[in-house]
Amino acid sequence: MTQTPANSETAGARRRKTAVDAVPPGAEPGQGGARRVMARCDEVALISAMEHGIERTYLTSQHKAHNRLAAQWMRSAGLQTRVDEAGTLRGRLPGATPDAPVLYLGSHLDTVPDAGKYDGILGVTAAIEVASRFAERAQAGEPLPFALEVLAFGDEEGVRFGATLLGSRAMAGTWDPDWFELKDARGVTLREAMEEFGLDPDRVYDAAIDPEQTVGYLEAHIEQGPYLQDADKALGLVTSIAGARRLTVTVIGEAGHAGGTPYGRRRDALIGSSHAVIAIDRIGQERGVIVTVGELTVVDGAINVVPGRVEFTIDLRAATDEDRDAAYDEMIAELQSICLDRDLQVTVHEHHRAPGALCDPELMEAVREGIVATGDEEPMSLYSKAGHDAMAIAEVAPMAMLFTRCLDGISHNPGESVRHDDVDRALDALETAIRRIARNAA
Amino acid sequence: MTQTPANSETAGARRRKTAVDAVPPGAEPGQGGARRVMARCDEVALISAMEHGIERTYLTSQHKAHNRLAAQWMRSAGLQTRVDEAGTLRGRLPGATPDAPVLYLGSHLDTVPDAGKYDGILGVTAAIEVASRFAERAQAGEPLPFALEVLAFGDEEGVRFGATLLGSRAMAGTWDPDWFELKDARGVTLREAMEEFGLDPDRVYDAAIDPEQTVGYLEAHIEQGPYLQDADKALGLVTSIAGARRLTVTVIGEAGHAGGTPYGRRRDALIGSSHAVIAIDRIGQERGVIVTVGELTVVDGAINVVPGRVEFTIDLRAATDEDRDAAYDEMIAELQSICLDRDLQVTVHEHHRAPGALCDPELMEAVREGIVATGDEEPMSLYSKAGHDAMAIAEVAPMAMLFTRCLDGISHNPGESVRHDDVDRALDALETAIRRIARNAA
Repeated sequence: MTQTPANSETAGARRRKTAVDAVPPGAEPGQGGARRVMARCDEVALISAMEHGIERTYLTSQHKAHNRLAAQWMRSAGLQTRVDEAGTLRGRLPGATPDAPVLYLGSHLDTVPDAGKYDGILGVTAAIEVASRFAERAQAGEPLPFALEVLAFGDEEGVRFGATLLGSRAMAGTWDPDWFELKDARGVTLREAMEEFGLDPDRVYDAAIDPEQTVGYLEAHIEQGPYLQDADKALGLVTSIAGARRLTVTVIGEAGHAGGTPYGRRRDALIGSSHAVIAIDRIGQERGVIVTVGELTVVDGAINVVPGRVEFTIDLRAATDEDRDAAYDEMIAELQSICLDRDLQVTVHEHHRAPGALCDPELMEAVREGIVATGDEEPMSLYSKAGHDAMAIAEVAPMAMLFTRCLDGISHNPGESVRHDDVDRALDALETAIRRIARNAA
Repeated sequence: MTQTPANSETAGARRRKTAVDAVPPGAEPGQGGARRVMARCDEVALISAMEHGIERTYLTSQHKAHNRLAAQWMRSAGLQTRVDEAGTLRGRLPGATPDAPVLYLGSHLDTVPDAGKYDGILGVTAAIEVASRFAERAQAGEPLPFALEVLAFGDEEGVRFGATLLGSRAMAGTWDPDWFELKDARGVTLREAMEEFGLDPDRVYDAAIDPEQTVGYLEAHIEQGPYLQDADKALGLVTSIAGARRLTVTVIGEAGHAGGTPYGRRRDALIGSSHAVIAIDRIGQERGVIVTVGELTVVDGAINVVPGRVEFTIDLRAATDEDRDAAYDEMIAELQSICLDRDLQVTVHEHHRAPGALCDPELMEAVREGIVATGDEEPMSLYSKAGHDAMAIAEVAPMAMLFTRCLDGISHNPGESVRHDDVDRALDALETAIRRIARNAA
């Protein structure tokens, strides 16, 4: 294992580094699979709503264009393609029998604004590459005991309509009819956008898969964190996807004139909130959960007014719902105690709670075997701190995920970078994992 | 002295209390001066740009209306009125000789939005009332050795054009020609507004007083703080007007994904800023200066992003510039140390620095004698934490101020409340002070 050479450089220089540069001298690009996968990531990056930078969102002309491009790749890999009722591009390699169950493999092609080239995309292009290997073998008379279906979701990030994971939720059969009335920034509803895209909104429920006929779902994804890099590992075995709770906290004191309100009479909502921010961070670190106060504002603040009202957000993630909720309880108790001491009122509004998703033990074992086959005898286990399409699928079918190291954990940023040799290992690991699943299914 | 009965009530109930309610049972409204003064404060409160609530700003139809109303009161008090080149209404009682110097007396009639009835207004109506007493005496053949000129400034708060103290700065001869290009919220320049009001902008410099011909400037004002109430005092002797420094601090870390950025890699601008807010407050309290962080925002913050940039303001006031600047130095050093420890960058931009203004010892002695004459043998001295027209005048002439107790320090708020008997004391104190100044001048 080579040491990543980036640590001695500045962040700016690191970010300008491309994925190709990041291949260390002497690293061979394996069978060439990574070369094609990376070239395809570069090609889809040219489809963008931004003049400089990458942005592809749900049901736009960019969505149409990336579906068209990926469908070409799928067909050249020997897959039968269709766009489902939620706009997800699907490419199928039939199994040994017409009624064989399905192993799904995929990720998403939509992005955040000013995105990188790999978040989601690598999982789709890698899935197509691996499927092509099994398509060749099927043509040679060695079909899999299940159909292999590659999925290219059109909405994971939720940028356009706010609700996330729309493609995978449609597949899981958990589409919420209220979403039809969600509007984008220009006031277009989701229903109107679906119709404009050529979809029949009322048929979106037909995108749902049959759990009885589903072997499972495998997703490869860049880590979006630096844990693999720090441990000098190319690949990681995902154990769960963190459940998240998102809160808005309002701290209410009393606005008063800066000059005319002595300290003893102040009920300063910002001083209380500052103590709370520090306490929340401390509790998060002590408990080994991930907590972030990402937004904080003095409401109706003015330079010469003692803050009367502060609003801030809390984003809380943990390996298990139990860890997460225990940290939540301690944070809220501390918050209330801080506010009580300072004669402040506090209200907490939870506007998002996603249960964590545990990866399926059998599928995990297959992924572990895949990683071991690349020469890493002690695969690193980690949980995903970010949400993924696999979360939605986990509600109805077994799922597992394979993480690929990315440079410095940078993601949602043009600086996303992965190494060719890591991608080759990921392709090989996925292939081995699928063979193991096939062995067990046989 | 009666204990203020408000402490046992809720803030809401206190705020609904009117000035009339606040007269304790048994308190006699003295010679009736306070009754008229308070009634006039009620009358001018009806002039407002807001449907519910009080707002009067510079060079508006409300400014025209309050000048017209106050000019009637001045004339009925026996004063000769004119509107000066900056829109300040002036009412003059001539002195014993045509070339007698002038003692100025006044405050402002403009307000903040949703204002109270007394901030500024009480100083104008009290000045008119006191002047009427001297006008009566002059008619009886006892003129003062100086002219008495009552000033009703049209801009102290700076609400419309951002720059404050426009009326008194014109009088002090410190009008800045750059101000002509300042714009209000509708894009009207100060120059255009002056012309629309009927003023010749290029003649604004003619509003300047002749310091050689000026005895001084006396201003009565509500305290806008609770110190007098807490000390059970009706009146206070102002020693200085706090110098202020106003800063914007920018703390820069690195934005990162909430899920993908481990604690050890975070450069969280909000955690650093929270420590800074707490330290700034602590230093302010330890040093006996008044410091407020009134605005704080995570720039481009999002619920799932580690804050990369935070901006907050600091408002710093102290009895003397030396106290203020020593506190400033300690705060900035602490801020830099906090940011250095956390690998954050920090920049500090000072966008306002007003030197403190010391009250004139002789005029202060006159005000003290005035307060003693009301029966308070040990007048309370305090410094003004808020800015006043007297600050502008202090640059060219001696000034002093008399504070009147206001309920709970509430100001810039419909809850502003003063007691009739306190106003009567203020009128008597002003009258005595002016007599003492006359004695010394004779």
